Amino acid sequence: MSGRLFVIGLGPGNRGQVTPEASRAVAEAEFFYGYGPYVERLELRPDQTRIASDNREELSRANAALQKAAEGASVAVVSGGDPGVFAMAAAICEAIDTGPAQWRDVELTIIPGVTAMLAVAARIGAPLGHDFCAISLSDNLKPWDLIVRRLEAAASAGFVIALYNPISKARPWQLGSAFETLRRILPDTTPVIFGRAAGRPDERIEITPLSQARPEQADMATCVMIGSAETRIIERKGRAPLVYTPRFSAGSNQ
Amino acid sequence: MSGRLFVIGLGPGNRGQVTPEASRAVAEAEFFYGYGPYVERLELRPDQTRIASDNREELSRANAALQKAAEGASVAVVSGGDPGVFAMAAAICEAIDTGPAQWRDVELTIIPGVTAMLAVAARIGAPLGHDFCAISLSDNLKPWDLIVRRLEAAASAGFVIALYNPISKARPWQLGSAFETLRRILPDTTPVIFGRAAGRPDERIEITPLSQARPEQADMATCVMIGSAETRIIERKGRAPLVYTPRFSAGSNQ
Repeated sequence: MSGRLFVIGLGPGNRGQVTPEASRAVAEAEFFYGYGPYVERLELRPDQTRIASDNREELSRANAALQKAAEGASVAVVSGGDPGVFAMAAAICEAIDTGPAQWRDVELTIIPGVTAMLAVAARIGAPLGHDFCAISLSDNLKPWDLIVRRLEAAASAGFVIALYNPISKARPWQLGSAFETLRRILPDTTPVIFGRAAGRPDERIEITPLSQARPEQADMATCVMIGSAETRIIERKGRAPLVYTPRFSAGSNQ
Repeated sequence: MSGRLFVIGLGPGNRGQVTPEASRAVAEAEFFYGYGPYVERLELRPDQTRIASDNREELSRANAALQKAAEGASVAVVSGGDPGVFAMAAAICEAIDTGPAQWRDVELTIIPGVTAMLAVAARIGAPLGHDFCAISLSDNLKPWDLIVRRLEAAASAGFVIALYNPISKARPWQLGSAFETLRRILPDTTPVIFGRAAGRPDERIEITPLSQARPEQADMATCVMIGSAETRIIERKGRAPLVYTPRFSAGSNQ
Protein backbone atom coordinates (compact mmCIF):
# COMPACT_ATOMS: atom_id res chain seq x y z
CA MET A 1 0.00 0.00 0.00
CA SER A 2 1.68 3.16 -1.20
CA GLY A 3 1.12 6.54 0.41
CA ARG A 4 1.75 9.92 -1.07
CA LEU A 5 4.51 12.45 -1.19
CA PHE A 6 4.13 16.21 -1.52
CA VAL A 7 7.18 18.27 -2.43
CA ILE A 8 6.19 21.73 -1.31
CA GLY A 9 7.62 25.15 -2.15
CA LEU A 10 7.09 27.49 0.81
CA GLY A 11 8.15 30.65 -1.03
CA PRO A 12 10.77 33.11 0.21
CA GLY A 13 9.64 33.12 3.83
CA ASN A 14 6.86 35.66 4.00
CA ARG A 15 3.47 34.09 4.80
CA GLY A 16 1.77 36.24 2.18
CA GLN A 17 3.87 34.45 -0.44
CA VAL A 18 2.82 30.89 0.49
CA THR A 19 0.29 29.73 -2.12
CA PRO A 20 -3.08 28.32 -1.01
CA GLU A 21 -2.23 24.95 -2.58
CA ALA A 22 0.99 24.80 -0.54
CA SER A 23 -0.97 25.56 2.63
CA ARG A 24 -3.51 22.84 1.79
CA ALA A 25 -0.76 20.28 1.25
CA VAL A 26 0.80 21.21 4.61
CA ALA A 27 -2.60 20.64 6.26
CA GLU A 28 -2.88 17.23 4.62
CA ALA A 29 0.51 15.64 5.29
CA GLU A 30 1.54 13.79 8.46
CA PHE A 31 5.35 13.77 8.29
CA PHE A 32 7.49 16.76 7.25
CA TYR A 33 11.05 16.35 6.03
CA GLY A 34 13.31 19.28 5.28
CA TYR A 35 16.23 21.51 6.16
CA GLY A 36 15.83 22.75 9.74
CA PRO A 37 14.88 26.40 9.07
CA TYR A 38 12.22 25.36 6.54
CA VAL A 39 10.47 22.76 8.72
CA GLU A 40 10.65 25.23 11.63
CA ARG A 41 8.71 27.72 9.53
CA LEU A 42 5.68 25.38 9.42
CA GLU A 43 2.75 25.80 11.78
CA LEU A 44 1.80 22.21 12.50
CA ARG A 45 -0.83 20.41 14.57
CA PRO A 46 0.13 18.06 17.41
CA ASP A 47 -0.58 15.03 15.18
CA GLN A 48 1.96 16.21 12.58
CA THR A 49 5.68 15.40 12.87
CA ARG A 50 8.80 17.33 11.87
CA ILE A 51 11.94 15.50 10.74
CA ALA A 52 14.62 18.17 10.27
CA SER A 53 18.00 17.52 8.68
CA ASP A 54 21.10 19.40 7.58
CA ASN A 55 21.15 21.27 4.27
CA ARG A 56 23.79 19.02 2.74
CA GLU A 57 21.79 15.83 3.32
CA GLU A 58 19.35 16.23 0.45
CA LEU A 59 19.62 12.73 -1.00
CA SER A 60 19.39 10.88 2.32
CA ARG A 61 16.40 13.09 3.25
CA ALA A 62 14.77 12.24 -0.10
CA ASN A 63 15.36 8.52 0.49
CA ALA A 64 13.88 8.68 3.99
CA ALA A 65 10.79 10.58 2.81
CA LEU A 66 10.18 8.19 -0.10
CA GLN A 67 10.58 5.16 2.17
CA LYS A 68 8.05 6.60 4.61
CA ALA A 69 5.59 7.34 1.80
CA ALA A 70 6.09 3.87 0.29
CA GLU A 71 5.05 2.43 3.67
CA GLY A 72 1.71 4.19 3.29
CA ALA A 73 2.16 7.51 5.08
CA SER A 74 1.24 10.95 3.84
CA VAL A 75 4.60 12.70 3.66
CA ALA A 76 5.78 16.19 2.76
CA VAL A 77 9.24 17.39 1.82
CA VAL A 78 9.48 21.15 2.17
CA SER A 79 11.78 23.62 0.41
CA GLY A 80 12.10 27.36 0.72
CA GLY A 81 11.25 29.17 -2.51
CA ASP A 82 10.40 26.76 -5.31
CA PRO A 83 11.25 23.06 -4.87
CA GLY A 84 12.33 22.74 -8.51
CA VAL A 85 15.05 25.42 -8.38
CA PHE A 86 18.21 24.09 -6.68
CA ALA A 87 16.03 22.37 -4.11
CA MET A 88 14.36 19.09 -3.18
CA ALA A 89 12.38 18.14 -6.32
CA ALA A 90 15.53 17.04 -8.19
CA ALA A 91 16.79 15.09 -5.16
CA ILE A 92 13.44 13.27 -4.93
CA CYS A 93 13.58 12.41 -8.65
CA GLU A 94 17.16 11.14 -8.28
CA ALA A 95 16.09 8.97 -5.35
CA ILE A 96 13.17 7.54 -7.37
CA ASP A 97 15.45 6.95 -10.37
CA THR A 98 17.97 4.93 -8.36
CA GLY A 99 15.81 3.53 -5.55
CA PRO A 100 13.55 0.47 -5.13
CA ALA A 101 10.90 -0.08 -7.82
CA GLN A 102 8.02 0.48 -5.40
CA TRP A 103 9.07 4.14 -4.93
CA ARG A 104 7.78 4.76 -8.48
CA ASP A 105 4.29 3.87 -7.20
CA VAL A 106 4.24 6.69 -4.63
CA GLU A 107 1.75 9.35 -5.61
CA LEU A 108 4.03 12.36 -6.12
CA THR A 109 2.71 15.95 -6.11
CA ILE A 110 5.14 18.82 -6.56
CA ILE A 111 3.83 22.23 -5.56
CA PRO A 112 5.65 25.20 -7.05
CA GLY A 113 6.50 28.36 -5.13
CA VAL A 114 7.93 31.84 -5.58
CA THR A 115 11.67 31.30 -5.94
CA ALA A 116 14.19 33.73 -4.41
CA MET A 117 15.21 35.50 -7.63
CA LEU A 118 11.58 36.42 -8.37
CA ALA A 119 11.04 37.75 -4.84
CA VAL A 120 14.24 39.82 -4.90
CA ALA A 121 13.51 41.11 -8.41
CA ALA A 122 10.03 42.24 -7.34
CA ARG A 123 11.49 44.26 -4.45
CA ILE A 124 13.79 46.22 -6.71
CA GLY A 125 12.11 46.64 -10.10
CA ALA A 126 12.52 44.24 -13.00
CA PRO A 127 16.14 43.09 -13.27
CA LEU A 128 14.94 39.81 -14.88
CA GLY A 129 12.83 41.67 -17.44
CA HIS A 130 14.86 40.29 -20.35
CA ASP A 131 16.53 36.89 -20.94
CA PHE A 132 18.18 35.53 -17.80
CA CYS A 133 19.73 32.46 -16.26
CA ALA A 134 20.03 30.89 -12.84
CA ILE A 135 23.29 29.28 -11.74
CA SER A 136 24.08 27.55 -8.47
CA LEU A 137 27.54 28.72 -7.45
CA SER A 138 28.10 25.62 -5.33
CA ASP A 139 30.93 23.45 -6.58
CA ASN A 140 29.90 20.57 -4.33
CA LEU A 141 27.96 18.99 -7.19
CA LYS A 142 29.82 20.20 -10.27
CA PRO A 143 33.40 21.19 -11.08
CA TRP A 144 34.35 24.84 -10.64
CA ASP A 145 35.65 25.14 -14.20
CA LEU A 146 32.16 24.26 -15.49
CA ILE A 147 30.70 27.07 -13.39
CA VAL A 148 33.27 29.50 -14.81
CA ARG A 149 32.42 28.47 -18.38
CA ARG A 150 28.73 28.99 -17.67
CA LEU A 151 29.33 32.43 -16.18
CA GLU A 152 31.38 33.39 -19.23
CA ALA A 153 28.80 32.01 -21.67
CA ALA A 154 25.89 33.72 -19.93
CA ALA A 155 27.56 37.11 -19.53
CA SER A 156 28.96 37.11 -23.07
CA ALA A 157 25.53 36.29 -24.54
CA GLY A 158 23.79 39.09 -22.60
CA PHE A 159 21.86 37.07 -20.03
CA VAL A 160 21.14 38.58 -16.62
CA ILE A 161 22.56 36.08 -14.10
CA ALA A 162 20.95 35.02 -10.81
CA LEU A 163 23.37 33.21 -8.51
CA TYR A 164 21.97 30.79 -5.96
CA ASN A 165 24.10 29.35 -3.12
CA PRO A 166 26.64 32.16 -3.64
CA ILE A 167 28.78 31.59 -0.55
CA SER A 168 29.12 29.51 2.61
CA LYS A 169 31.73 28.79 5.26
CA ALA A 170 32.89 25.80 3.26
CA ARG A 171 32.92 27.81 -0.01
CA PRO A 172 34.42 31.19 0.89
CA TRP A 173 36.32 32.19 -2.31
CA GLN A 174 34.00 31.21 -5.15
CA LEU A 175 31.83 34.34 -5.25
CA GLY A 176 34.85 36.66 -5.40
CA SER A 177 36.27 34.56 -8.19
CA ALA A 178 32.93 34.70 -10.05
CA PHE A 179 32.98 38.52 -9.82
CA GLU A 180 36.52 38.52 -11.25
CA THR A 181 35.38 36.38 -14.17
CA LEU A 182 32.40 38.64 -14.84
CA ARG A 183 34.50 41.84 -14.61
CA ARG A 184 36.51 40.65 -17.59
CA ILE A 185 33.31 40.59 -19.69
CA LEU A 186 30.80 43.13 -18.35
CA PRO A 187 31.08 46.93 -17.89
CA ASP A 188 32.29 48.20 -14.47
CA THR A 189 28.95 49.90 -13.95
CA THR A 190 26.84 46.72 -14.36
CA PRO A 191 24.45 46.64 -11.39
CA VAL A 192 24.91 43.78 -8.94
CA ILE A 193 21.99 43.14 -6.58
CA PHE A 194 22.50 41.41 -3.26
CA GLY A 195 19.04 40.34 -2.14
CA ARG A 196 18.76 38.75 1.27
CA ALA A 197 15.54 37.52 2.92
CA ALA A 198 13.28 39.37 0.45
CA GLY A 199 9.89 40.11 1.97
CA ARG A 200 10.97 39.07 5.47
CA PRO A 201 11.53 41.39 8.45
CA ASP A 202 15.32 41.00 8.12
CA GLU A 203 15.30 41.85 4.40
CA ARG A 204 18.43 43.56 3.11
CA ILE A 205 18.84 44.56 -0.51
CA GLU A 206 21.94 46.32 -1.84
CA ILE A 207 22.85 47.53 -5.32
CA THR A 208 26.55 47.81 -6.11
CA PRO A 209 28.43 48.40 -9.39
CA LEU A 210 30.20 45.22 -10.50
CA SER A 211 33.58 46.94 -10.13
CA GLN A 212 32.93 47.31 -6.39
CA ALA A 213 30.95 44.15 -5.60
CA ARG A 214 32.49 42.24 -2.69
CA PRO A 215 31.71 38.68 -1.62
CA GLU A 216 31.24 39.87 1.99
CA GLN A 217 27.99 41.50 0.84
CA ALA A 218 26.43 38.00 0.52
CA ASP A 219 25.72 35.13 2.85
CA MET A 220 24.08 31.72 2.38
CA ALA A 221 20.61 33.27 2.32
CA THR A 222 21.43 35.85 -0.38
CA CYS A 223 20.42 35.69 -4.03
CA VAL A 224 23.00 37.65 -6.05
CA MET A 225 21.89 39.03 -9.41
CA ILE A 226 24.28 40.46 -11.98
CA GLY A 227 22.72 42.62 -14.65
CA SER A 228 23.52 42.54 -18.34
CA ALA A 229 25.21 45.44 -20.11
CA GLU A 230 21.70 46.80 -20.74
CA THR A 231 20.42 46.74 -17.14
CA ARG A 232 19.54 50.25 -15.95
CA ILE A 233 19.05 52.08 -12.65
CA ILE A 234 16.28 54.66 -12.12
CA GLU A 235 16.99 57.08 -9.28
CA ARG A 236 13.94 58.28 -7.32
CA LYS A 237 13.92 61.14 -4.81
CA GLY A 238 13.11 59.82 -1.33
CA ARG A 239 12.63 56.28 -2.60
CA ALA A 240 14.93 53.33 -3.28
CA PRO A 241 16.19 53.24 -6.87
CA LEU A 242 14.65 50.82 -9.35
CA VAL A 243 16.78 48.38 -11.31
CA TYR A 244 15.45 46.95 -14.55
CA THR A 245 16.51 45.27 -17.75
CA PRO A 246 14.62 46.66 -20.75
CA ARG A 247 12.48 44.30 -22.79
CA PHE A 248 14.06 45.69 -25.94
CA SER A 249 17.58 44.75 -27.01
CA ALA A 250 19.35 45.99 -30.10
CA GLY A 251 21.92 43.24 -29.65
CA SER A 252 24.60 45.87 -29.11
CA ASN A 253 26.07 43.95 -26.18
CA GLN A 254 27.61 41.60 -28.71
CA MET B 1 -1.16 63.89 -4.73
CA SER B 2 0.26 60.62 -5.94
CA GLY B 3 -1.57 57.32 -5.67
CA ARG B 4 -0.17 53.86 -5.75
CA LEU B 5 0.52 51.19 -8.30
CA PHE B 6 0.54 47.44 -7.71
CA VAL B 7 2.11 45.22 -10.34
CA ILE B 8 0.60 41.85 -9.54
CA GLY B 9 1.61 38.34 -10.59
CA LEU B 10 -1.49 36.14 -10.73
CA GLY B 11 0.40 32.87 -11.19
CA PRO B 12 -0.26 30.34 -13.94
CA GLY B 13 -4.04 30.51 -13.76
CA ASN B 14 -5.03 28.13 -11.01
CA ARG B 15 -6.58 29.87 -8.00
CA GLY B 16 -4.57 27.71 -5.62
CA GLN B 17 -1.43 29.30 -7.04
CA VAL B 18 -2.41 32.93 -6.41
CA THR B 19 -0.49 34.11 -3.34
CA PRO B 20 -2.33 35.72 -0.42
CA GLU B 21 -0.43 38.99 -0.97
CA ALA B 22 -1.59 39.07 -4.59
CA SER B 23 -5.19 38.51 -3.47
CA ARG B 24 -4.88 41.31 -0.90
CA ALA B 25 -3.54 43.72 -3.52
CA VAL B 26 -6.43 42.84 -5.84
CA ALA B 27 -8.85 43.63 -3.00
CA GLU B 28 -7.17 47.00 -2.44
CA ALA B 29 -6.91 48.44 -5.95
CA GLU B 30 -9.62 50.34 -7.82
CA PHE B 31 -8.50 50.18 -11.47
CA PHE B 32 -7.11 47.06 -13.15
CA TYR B 33 -5.00 47.26 -16.30
CA GLY B 34 -3.87 44.19 -18.21
CA TYR B 35 -4.07 41.86 -21.15
CA GLY B 36 -7.70 40.77 -21.63
CA PRO B 37 -7.46 37.15 -20.40
CA TYR B 38 -5.65 38.23 -17.22
CA VAL B 39 -8.05 40.99 -16.18
CA GLU B 40 -10.93 38.62 -17.01
CA ARG B 41 -9.52 36.16 -14.50
CA LEU B 42 -10.06 38.63 -11.63
CA GLU B 43 -13.10 38.42 -9.38
CA LEU B 44 -13.87 42.10 -8.80
CA ARG B 45 -16.43 44.08 -6.82
CA PRO B 46 -18.83 46.49 -8.57
CA ASP B 47 -16.70 49.45 -7.42
CA GLN B 48 -13.61 48.07 -9.18
CA THR B 49 -12.92 48.71 -12.87
CA ARG B 50 -11.26 46.58 -15.56
CA ILE B 51 -9.28 48.23 -18.37
CA ALA B 52 -8.29 45.43 -20.76
CA SER B 53 -5.89 45.85 -23.65
CA ASP B 54 -4.14 43.79 -26.30
CA ASN B 55 -1.02 41.80 -25.45
CA ARG B 56 1.23 43.86 -27.69
CA GLU B 57 0.32 47.16 -26.02
CA GLU B 58 2.47 46.77 -22.93
CA LEU B 59 4.12 50.19 -22.95
CA SER B 60 0.95 52.16 -23.62
CA ARG B 61 -0.80 50.15 -20.89
CA ALA B 62 2.06 50.95 -18.51
CA ASN B 63 1.81 54.65 -19.36
CA ALA B 64 -1.95 54.69 -18.81
CA ALA B 65 -1.68 52.91 -15.46
CA LEU B 66 1.09 55.22 -14.22
CA GLN B 67 -0.84 58.30 -15.29
CA LYS B 68 -3.92 57.08 -13.42
CA ALA B 69 -1.85 56.35 -10.29
CA ALA B 70 -0.10 59.73 -10.51
CA GLU B 71 -3.55 61.34 -10.43
CA GLY B 72 -4.13 59.74 -7.02
CA ALA B 73 -5.90 56.47 -7.80
CA SER B 74 -5.09 53.04 -6.47
CA VAL B 75 -4.15 51.11 -9.59
CA ALA B 76 -3.17 47.54 -10.39
CA VAL B 77 -1.45 46.16 -13.45
CA VAL B 78 -1.89 42.40 -13.63
CA SER B 79 0.25 39.77 -15.32
CA GLY B 80 -0.13 36.02 -15.56
CA GLY B 81 2.69 34.13 -13.86
CA ASP B 82 5.29 36.49 -12.42
CA PRO B 83 5.26 40.16 -13.49
CA GLY B 84 9.07 40.28 -13.62
CA VAL B 85 9.48 37.49 -16.18
CA PHE B 86 8.70 38.72 -19.72
CA ALA B 87 5.74 40.64 -18.33
CA MET B 88 4.59 44.02 -17.08
CA ALA B 89 7.18 44.96 -14.41
CA ALA B 90 9.82 45.83 -17.01
CA ALA B 91 7.31 47.84 -19.07
CA ILE B 92 6.34 49.80 -15.95
CA CYS B 93 10.00 50.53 -15.19
CA GLU B 94 10.61 51.64 -18.78
CA ALA B 95 7.61 53.97 -18.56
CA ILE B 96 8.90 55.45 -15.29
CA ASP B 97 12.40 55.82 -16.75
CA THR B 98 11.20 57.80 -19.77
CA GLY B 99 7.99 59.40 -18.44
CA PRO B 100 7.18 62.58 -16.48
CA ALA B 101 9.14 63.16 -13.26
CA GLN B 102 6.04 62.81 -11.07
CA TRP B 103 5.68 59.16 -12.07
CA ARG B 104 8.74 58.45 -9.90
CA ASP B 105 6.69 59.53 -6.88
CA VAL B 106 4.05 56.84 -7.39
CA GLU B 107 4.24 54.25 -4.62
CA LEU B 108 5.15 51.13 -6.58
CA THR B 109 4.65 47.62 -5.18
CA ILE B 110 5.55 44.61 -7.31
CA ILE B 111 4.09 41.31 -6.16
CA PRO B 112 5.85 38.20 -7.44
CA GLY B 113 4.06 35.08 -8.62
CA VAL B 114 4.69 31.53 -9.77
CA THR B 115 6.01 31.87 -13.31
CA ALA B 116 5.04 29.37 -16.04
CA MET B 117 8.31 27.44 -16.16
CA LEU B 118 8.08 26.67 -12.42
CA ALA B 119 4.47 25.50 -12.74
CA VAL B 120 5.22 23.29 -15.74
CA ALA B 121 8.36 21.91 -14.10
CA ALA B 122 6.41 20.98 -10.96
CA ARG B 123 3.88 18.99 -13.03
CA ILE B 124 6.56 16.86 -14.62
CA GLY B 125 9.38 16.38 -12.12
CA ALA B 126 12.40 18.65 -11.88
CA PRO B 127 13.64 19.62 -15.35
CA LEU B 128 15.04 22.89 -13.89
CA GLY B 129 16.90 21.04 -11.13
CA HIS B 130 20.28 22.22 -12.41
CA ASP B 131 21.46 25.49 -14.01
CA PHE B 132 18.90 26.88 -16.44
CA CYS B 133 17.94 29.94 -18.45
CA ALA B 134 14.78 31.62 -19.66
CA ILE B 135 14.63 33.12 -23.16
CA SER B 136 11.74 34.92 -24.82
CA LEU B 137 11.57 33.63 -28.37
CA SER B 138 9.81 36.78 -29.56
CA ASP B 139 11.84 38.77 -32.07
CA ASN B 140 9.53 41.76 -31.75
CA LEU B 141 11.89 43.32 -29.21
CA LYS B 142 15.29 41.93 -30.19
CA PRO B 143 16.92 40.73 -33.41
CA TRP B 144 16.56 37.05 -34.29
CA ASP B 145 20.31 36.55 -34.63
CA LEU B 146 20.72 37.56 -30.97
CA ILE B 147 18.20 34.90 -29.98
CA VAL B 148 20.09 32.30 -32.02
CA ARG B 149 23.37 33.25 -30.33
CA ARG B 150 21.74 32.94 -26.92
CA LEU B 151 20.28 29.52 -27.75
CA GLU B 152 23.70 28.35 -28.92
CA ALA B 153 25.47 29.76 -25.87
CA ALA B 154 22.98 28.24 -23.43
CA ALA B 155 22.83 24.80 -25.02
CA SER B 156 26.61 24.61 -25.46
CA ALA B 157 27.21 25.53 -21.83
CA GLY B 158 24.77 22.90 -20.52
CA PHE B 159 21.89 25.10 -19.38
CA VAL B 160 18.35 23.75 -19.50
CA ILE B 161 16.39 26.28 -21.60
CA ALA B 162 12.85 27.53 -20.90
CA LEU B 163 11.33 29.31 -23.90
CA TYR B 164 8.62 31.89 -23.29
CA ASN B 165 6.50 33.31 -26.13
CA PRO B 166 7.50 30.38 -28.34
CA ILE B 167 5.08 30.95 -31.21
CA SER B 168 2.20 33.14 -32.41
CA LYS B 169 0.32 33.83 -35.63
CA ALA B 170 2.71 36.68 -36.37
CA ARG B 171 5.77 34.57 -35.49
CA PRO B 172 5.12 31.13 -37.03
CA TRP B 173 8.64 29.93 -38.02
CA GLN B 174 10.84 30.92 -35.10
CA LEU B 175 10.25 27.89 -32.86
CA GLY B 176 11.05 25.41 -35.65
CA SER B 177 14.21 27.36 -36.41
CA ALA B 178 15.14 27.30 -32.70
CA PHE B 179 14.75 23.50 -32.66
CA GLU B 180 17.03 23.28 -35.73
CA THR B 181 19.67 25.36 -33.96
CA LEU B 182 19.46 23.21 -30.83
CA ARG B 183 19.61 19.92 -32.79
CA ARG B 184 23.05 20.92 -34.03
CA ILE B 185 24.27 21.05 -30.40
CA LEU B 186 22.23 18.69 -28.21
CA PRO B 187 21.68 14.90 -28.47
CA ASP B 188 18.63 13.70 -30.45
CA THR B 189 17.19 12.18 -27.28
CA THR B 190 17.20 15.44 -25.28
CA PRO B 191 13.72 15.74 -23.73
CA VAL B 192 11.61 18.67 -24.90
CA ILE B 193 8.64 19.55 -22.70
CA PHE B 194 5.64 21.36 -24.09
CA GLY B 195 3.74 22.65 -21.07
CA ARG B 196 0.45 24.39 -21.70
CA ALA B 197 -1.90 25.80 -19.07
CA ALA B 198 -0.17 23.99 -16.19
CA GLY B 199 -2.52 23.46 -13.28
CA ARG B 200 -5.60 24.56 -15.24
CA PRO B 201 -8.44 22.34 -16.48
CA ASP B 202 -7.15 22.55 -20.05
CA GLU B 203 -3.59 21.56 -19.05
CA ARG B 204 -1.64 19.65 -21.70
CA ILE B 205 1.91 18.50 -21.14
CA GLU B 206 3.89 16.55 -23.72
CA ILE B 207 7.41 15.16 -23.68
CA THR B 208 9.11 14.68 -27.04
CA PRO B 209 12.71 13.88 -28.01
CA LEU B 210 14.40 16.91 -29.55
CA SER B 211 14.80 15.06 -32.86
CA GLN B 212 11.00 14.85 -33.16
CA ALA B 213 9.90 18.14 -31.56
CA ARG B 214 7.57 20.09 -33.85
CA PRO B 215 6.51 23.72 -33.50
CA GLU B 216 2.85 22.67 -33.94
CA GLN B 217 3.05 21.17 -30.43
CA ALA B 218 3.14 24.71 -28.98
CA ASP B 219 0.86 27.70 -28.97
CA MET B 220 1.07 31.17 -27.40
CA ALA B 221 0.18 29.79 -23.97
CA THR B 222 2.85 27.07 -24.00
CA CYS B 223 6.14 27.15 -22.10
CA VAL B 224 8.64 24.99 -24.01
CA MET B 225 11.54 23.54 -22.04
CA ILE B 226 14.56 21.91 -23.63
CA GLY B 227 16.66 19.71 -21.37
CA SER B 228 20.42 19.63 -21.22
CA ALA B 229 22.42 16.58 -22.29
CA GLU B 230 22.07 15.36 -18.70
CA THR B 231 18.28 15.61 -18.37
CA ARG B 232 16.72 12.19 -17.68
CA ILE B 233 13.33 10.52 -17.97
CA ILE B 234 11.99 8.10 -15.34
CA GLU B 235 9.30 5.75 -16.66
CA ARG B 236 6.58 4.77 -14.17
CA LYS B 237 4.01 2.00 -14.68
CA GLY B 238 0.51 3.50 -14.82
CA ARG B 239 1.80 7.02 -14.16
CA ALA B 240 3.18 9.82 -16.32
CA PRO B 241 6.96 9.73 -16.64
CA LEU B 242 9.10 12.12 -14.60
CA VAL B 243 11.65 14.39 -16.27
CA TYR B 244 14.51 15.75 -14.20
CA THR B 245 17.94 17.26 -14.49
CA PRO B 246 20.29 15.84 -11.84
CA ARG B 247 21.83 18.23 -9.36
CA PHE B 248 25.22 16.65 -10.04
CA SER B 249 27.19 17.40 -13.20
CA ALA B 250 30.56 15.95 -14.08
CA GLY B 251 30.91 18.59 -16.77
CA SER B 252 30.93 15.86 -19.42
CA ASN B 253 28.55 17.82 -21.62
CA GLN B 254 31.48 20.01 -22.57
